[in-house]
Amino acid sequence: MKKAVVLLSGGLDSATTLFYAKDKGYQCFALTFDYGQRHKKEIQAAKHIAKIAKIPQTILKIALPWKGSALLDEKASLPKNRSTRKMSKEIPVTYVPARNTIFLSYALSYAEALGAEAIFIGANAIDYSGYPDCRPNFIKSFERTGKLGTKSGKIRILAPLIKLTKAEIIKLGKKLGVPHEKTWSCYAGGQTPCGVCDSCLIRNKGFSSI
Amino acid sequence: MKKAVVLLSGGLDSATTLFYAKDKGYQCFALTFDYGQRHKKEIQAAKHIAKIAKIPQTILKIALPWKGSALLDEKASLPKNRSTRKMSKEIPVTYVPARNTIFLSYALSYAEALGAEAIFIGANAIDYSGYPDCRPNFIKSFERTGKLGTKSGKIRILAPLIKLTKAEIIKLGKKLGVPHEKTWSCYAGGQTPCGVCDSCLIRNKGFSSI
Repeated sequence: MKKAVVLLSGGLDSATTLFYAKDKGYQCFALTFDYGQRHKKEIQAAKHIAKIAKIPQTILKIALPWKGSALLDEKASLPKNRSTRKMSKEIPVTYVPARNTIFLSYALSYAEALGAEAIFIGANAIDYSGYPDCRPNFIKSFERTGKLGTKSGKIRILAPLIKLTKAEIIKLGKKLGVPHEKTWSCYAGGQTPCGVCDSCLIRNKGFSSI
Repeated sequence: MKKAVVLLSGGLDSATTLFYAKDKGYQCFALTFDYGQRHKKEIQAAKHIAKIAKIPQTILKIALPWKGSALLDEKASLPKNRSTRKMSKEIPVTYVPARNTIFLSYALSYAEALGAEAIFIGANAIDYSGYPDCRPNFIKSFERTGKLGTKSGKIRILAPLIKLTKAEIIKLGKKLGVPHEKTWSCYAGGQTPCGVCDSCLIRNKGFSSI
């Protein structure tokens, strides 16, 4: 059975990606990061989702002591009610320096040690916060770098949602049986989602448009 | 003053790279990884070197729980007395999956948070153990990926030793004042260097040929 490492954050996109990879016949190994984000809600969500999907999960605690992001600093204020037009044009303070490069690097190491042929990432460049490390040319370039820097030289980086709208991701998730109610998107860590951060706005727009 | 993050393992090459970057006028920030290697000798060496160079140093403890390398497994035996011809043709069991990709990813994150314009790495593709993530095309590809995946899009990856022989690196180090006696190269962690692992063989050949 072909193996894949799946980056699982606990949000809508990574959960859908996990169910997609399973549906495509991959034996999946989930990789989740505790990287000092403001709250642990999304890690809890990732645990629930891995359990429901019956997938082994590795949770890695990693330190980014230089911070450099509002997502790593509880005292920083999060952008509220940004228009989707603005989101697509301006990298916000929630950007974590080189986050996906770090996550993909660990996934590459894990994939090589496992003998996996692919890494799945839920990156999306349509309804997203404008992060540079979610765009197709970054993903392609990382794949090329990974091929050059590993022994096998063959591990593929797959981002099946990269060109889907949030509504399309939600519809795909429904078809695949993704437990949407268990996913967590909000950047803040309140009892309930804040409804005004980029991530809540994108999620809510997606659900209201299907 | 222009800033740079310097990957500092404690070996000959990274120490020389640090002194080279300082000599080129960079304000340097050393980054050292405690990644579960067989012994702590090289981390101790890295601490000494950073202190001598009067450079701030961050030591990050990172986990690679999937292992996949003799360098991460105390019970695995290390290759002994490999010929340099063999080293250049065969990736050995000491290869750590995606190690330089992970190290450079963290350096990229740190550099972006610092506002640094460059990352220095002591990779060498002449007198080396045959690791794929030490070759020029990997370094170039990582730089391109990093530019695509960051906010600034401008951080350069510099590997000034990549095409030097070990003897040339030693000569350069002498010129720059590198404290060679404080560096540690041996893969094993004995009281004194083993003299037969790839790293000892390369180092000794370098010193005996200058």
